[in-house]
Amino acid sequence: MLLQTRPLDLMFQALGDPARRAMVERLSRSPASVSELARPLPMSLSAVVQHLRVLEDSGLVRSEKIGRVRTCHIRPIALSQAEQWINDRRISWERRLDRLGEYLANNPEDPEPGEKP
Amino acid sequence: MLLQTRPLDLMFQALGDPARRAMVERLSRSPASVSELARPLPMSLSAVVQHLRVLEDSGLVRSEKIGRVRTCHIRPIALSQAEQWINDRRISWERRLDRLGEYLANNPEDPEPGEKP
Repeated sequence: MLLQTRPLDLMFQALGDPARRAMVERLSRSPASVSELARPLPMSLSAVVQHLRVLEDSGLVRSEKIGRVRTCHIRPIALSQAEQWINDRRISWERRLDRLGEYLANNPEDPEPGEKP
Repeated sequence: MLLQTRPLDLMFQALGDPARRAMVERLSRSPASVSELARPLPMSLSAVVQHLRVLEDSGLVRSEKIGRVRTCHIRPIALSQAEQWINDRRISWERRLDRLGEYLANNPEDPEPGEKP
């Protein structure tokens, strides 16, 4: 059961860092060069390149080099896999609430004698 | 900008492990004791307790001890924060696609001479 989960591992691990989330946030607005990605971040360019590698390994971002400029793009399909996993948990949890609601509706407690109905 | 993101860091880091996701998956169906959580997992009880601590620190799970049994519960509000972050990125990306569509609609390329319209 735990074997086929590597892509989700890498995606959630990649999102567990504020600099990498800032990069994903930037790229969800438009593609960007590595130096554009680095500009607002309080770290060296080589640190940004390291973070970029983690994002690319996770599948959340892809980049292509044309001439001397590497341009980075978001991969929304990967992001939606992470979203889907969380979404499935929420659905499962809401179903449980529905079942609990049904149970309570079908098993109303009889009011105690003397208690207002 | 990167300072106020600690809760999301911890949540995504917590979800970046298949055993912890299996535990969240289990708890999204119903609350469970630590030994119920551990049963399907191929690891020691003490490893499960370690994972549980990471999940509690991230806010995704809470537990309470009554007598000798510790019962674990999902915290759906925390899970929905992680979902919201991803969702916001998707909305941002979809808006970009909309703008691109509008641009293309307002700037149709004139067909080349001799090309079929």
